[in-house]
Amino acid sequence: MTSPDNIRVGVLGARGRMGAQAVQAVEGAEGMEVVAKLDAGDALSGLVDAKAGVVIDFTHPDAVMDNLRFVVENGISAVVGTTGFTEERLARVREWLSGKPETGVLIAPNFALGAVLAMRFAAQAARFYESAEIIELHHNRKADAPSGTAAHTARMVAEARRSAGLRPGADATTSEVDGARGASVDDVRVHSVRLPGLVAHEEILFGGQGETLTIRHDSIDRVSFMPGVLLGVREVRRRPGLTVGLENVLDL
Amino acid sequence: MTSPDNIRVGVLGARGRMGAQAVQAVEGAEGMEVVAKLDAGDALSGLVDAKAGVVIDFTHPDAVMDNLRFVVENGISAVVGTTGFTEERLARVREWLSGKPETGVLIAPNFALGAVLAMRFAAQAARFYESAEIIELHHNRKADAPSGTAAHTARMVAEARRSAGLRPGADATTSEVDGARGASVDDVRVHSVRLPGLVAHEEILFGGQGETLTIRHDSIDRVSFMPGVLLGVREVRRRPGLTVGLENVLDL
Amino acid sequence: MTSPDNIRVGVLGARGRMGAQAVQAVEGAEGMEVVAKLDAGDALSGLVDAKAGVVIDFTHPDAVMDNLRFVVENGISAVVGTTGFTEERLARVREWLSGKPETGVLIAPNFALGAVLAMRFAAQAARFYESAEIIELHHNRKADAPSGTAAHTARMVAEARRSAGLRPGADATTSEVDGARGASVDDVRVHSVRLPGLVAHEEILFGGQGETLTIRHDSIDRVSFMPGVLLGVREVRRRPGLTVGLENVLDL
Amino acid sequence: MTSPDNIRVGVLGARGRMGAQAVQAVEGAEGMEVVAKLDAGDALSGLVDAKAGVVIDFTHPDAVMDNLRFVVENGISAVVGTTGFTEERLARVREWLSGKPETGVLIAPNFALGAVLAMRFAAQAARFYESAEIIELHHNRKADAPSGTAAHTARMVAEARRSAGLRPGADATTSEVDGARGASVDDVRVHSVRLPGLVAHEEILFGGQGETLTIRHDSIDRVSFMPGVLLGVREVRRRPGLTVGLENVLDL
Repeated sequence: MTSPDNIRVGVLGARGRMGAQAVQAVEGAEGMEVVAKLDAGDALSGLVDAKAGVVIDFTHPDAVMDNLRFVVENGISAVVGTTGFTEERLARVREWLSGKPETGVLIAPNFALGAVLAMRFAAQAARFYESAEIIELHHNRKADAPSGTAAHTARMVAEARRSAGLRPGADATTSEVDGARGASVDDVRVHSVRLPGLVAHEEILFGGQGETLTIRHDSIDRVSFMPGVLLGVREVRRRPGLTVGLENVLDL
Repeated sequence: MTSPDNIRVGVLGARGRMGAQAVQAVEGAEGMEVVAKLDAGDALSGLVDAKAGVVIDFTHPDAVMDNLRFVVENGISAVVGTTGFTEERLARVREWLSGKPETGVLIAPNFALGAVLAMRFAAQAARFYESAEIIELHHNRKADAPSGTAAHTARMVAEARRSAGLRPGADATTSEVDGARGASVDDVRVHSVRLPGLVAHEEILFGGQGETLTIRHDSIDRVSFMPGVLLGVREVRRRPGLTVGLENVLDL
Repeated sequence: MTSPDNIRVGVLGARGRMGAQAVQAVEGAEGMEVVAKLDAGDALSGLVDAKAGVVIDFTHPDAVMDNLRFVVENGISAVVGTTGFTEERLARVREWLSGKPETGVLIAPNFALGAVLAMRFAAQAARFYESAEIIELHHNRKADAPSGTAAHTARMVAEARRSAGLRPGADATTSEVDGARGASVDDVRVHSVRLPGLVAHEEILFGGQGETLTIRHDSIDRVSFMPGVLLGVREVRRRPGLTVGLENVLDL
Repeated sequence: MTSPDNIRVGVLGARGRMGAQAVQAVEGAEGMEVVAKLDAGDALSGLVDAKAGVVIDFTHPDAVMDNLRFVVENGISAVVGTTGFTEERLARVREWLSGKPETGVLIAPNFALGAVLAMRFAAQAARFYESAEIIELHHNRKADAPSGTAAHTARMVAEARRSAGLRPGADATTSEVDGARGASVDDVRVHSVRLPGLVAHEEILFGGQGETLTIRHDSIDRVSFMPGVLLGVREVRRRPGLTVGLENVLDL
């Protein structure tokens, strides 16, 4: 809906799979509107002409750095779902932002609120339990096992456990058929199930005396990324500088 | 294990079901030891003689107020699992504590860390989702439905939703067999399953576009309360005054 | 794939949502091919011209009886997903089939193999357990609670329990917030959860001393009906007469 | 309860963990009574003196063959939970029984009805799905991974798949952290989770187009074996000869 109070949003990669969904999501959301839809070949100056306040970038690792330099120079904040950010790239973005106290950039590898919340809660719960394991379940066309999200969760859980002085969970297994106990990611066991009929699911299990705590996220459609993107659009202008990870704008 | 650095713990209600478990738990824990085991009829002065620094109270609503007045007056901190605390009772405890800047009292209706974490995470997740429902599952000897924990969780979720300006989740049901949609607790639907072979289980489900987040706690033994009690013993002396609810000593 | 040995399949309602999926499924399957695609307004004689051996009917209650009379008269077998079959309608189909020892009709309210298997297993398990309850979970645009499948499952479980001489499961609930214990369908409790992000899920729980058995079916796409339709196409010609329910061609 | 119509039950290994539970279970059941409780050192002739009709044997691999020879010679049927039966041992029991048309022996590695039903349903469902995997979850004091029950289930599922002409489920994994995809038992993937707070749980997952079917068994107490033992006592006299596996007396 058009309104002078709306956040004016430009979408980069607007004809791509995620970009097209972002356009649709912004158009359906309150308090914001799409003012520019650009894709490969379009001039970035269109963002300035359209007076965009925030851009959403779902483009390509080859394009995203040029996009970010341009928008930061022009005082436009950015919500970025494009992948391929190294420490070196993040450092450059920080440098560009250093002279722009009113411009923010949010770069997030995962915009699914549920996945981000699950990871955060897992990290919070980790220090209260003797042991933790992860089961992730995906469709059987997936190439990597475990999933990036599950591996990342495992490392967050492991880090929280170490900070609390916990050693790896006790495991009395003495006879194992190879692989039964899953992959060890930073001393946290991760099990990867692959079946047709599944989409993307993750379960983090914690065990203590007489009880277990389980945090589970089920995602069945990439539309599930959009509430996180919209939240990013709303929050990024209030957070100058670089923010990495959606969890850092959730105010948990 | 005995050590001059140990927290010296007195257990009130030491022959009761929970008290006996608390004795055992303290004896098995690092950094603390049991110095007094009292039950109905024993003189509270035994706590002072034993130089107890913290008492654990699993007694009875009829006894707990006298116990608390005594221990606070003697500068002994307390971890209390006894039930029956009204606002009026809490106010009296606060008053006793007002002149004792080094004495703390922790009163908690639920010492199961997993249940407390599940509630906390549910309250944190609530504002990010269009809708939430609760399923709690217990053995079929339970008299009340929903369980106290599930009803409490529902109210916490409802409160978090209201604070975020969310209205009750949309529900298109127009034809319902009576009871199918569960109980409405503060506009959050709660479903109570009762079966032999279950113990105590709670599942909080959140739904948004294309995704769900589920937080589940399974408790199969009351030994699951003990890590929470021990955590309380460690934390209560660092927190003068009255603390209600284990969640408030978890530093989440 | 075309082959002289293929089952020659005609699809009625071929432009409808389910019919179109059926066309695609048959075209992708081994041992069968689509020889006729008809929709409202097309002459049924096209089925005879195309030498169809089996028709799939996803049409409308107003059309299906005329369709069935025609195909049975012409010795064509039928797999029917159209709804609206009363006992009276079934009797008429049986009558038409009585003179056709080589023609079969399979009418099924549910072609999802998983749902049919879940119901069958639930009926088999029922007599071994003291108590059973059902949780069904659907998206929050659904109008009826409980779902037809869950209500049907409840009645099958109840019937199996009665046949085994079991009384309704014990329930000690004395204090209930209205609706907490779910709907009573034939003395089996059914709980209906409604959330965005869900599609169609059913869980049948059985409880006995120290153990529970859970049978769960998750359906996230109506493509899940197609393996059941294809199975029907393969089986219907070997089963003259009327068969009601996919479970009766599964040879369990 | 005592009654002339009762099945007269002798318990061997009556002071052992399982035997003692069996005594208690028979005493609480309708239609049967305990007439002899024997343990190591007691004369087997006590069974004849007590006119036992059925014995329950939870003893030891070293003792069970002598026990069985004695009871079969005396026309007493037997329900056996003792382990260690090889093909050679089973052949000897069959031979002893060959001259006893009214005596039956039931030997079962698992008396948990739910575990047996779960395996049976899994074997029945297997041929309808493209792919199947198993997750088993146990307390972290367990020495072997996967559990014997899960490995046995995997082989049953694999056998059912082969009989139906199915090849191993498709798996697009090209990049795997060692162990992530679990153990391969007869081409079925099995994942073993080990956590304190768990007891014994097994989940068999089947995946097809747009749907999954899950069969789950949770056991939290060895009392869960007793309904299976009692069912065995009731059924064994009606089944002369040797029966191996509780599933074969369930009449599914």
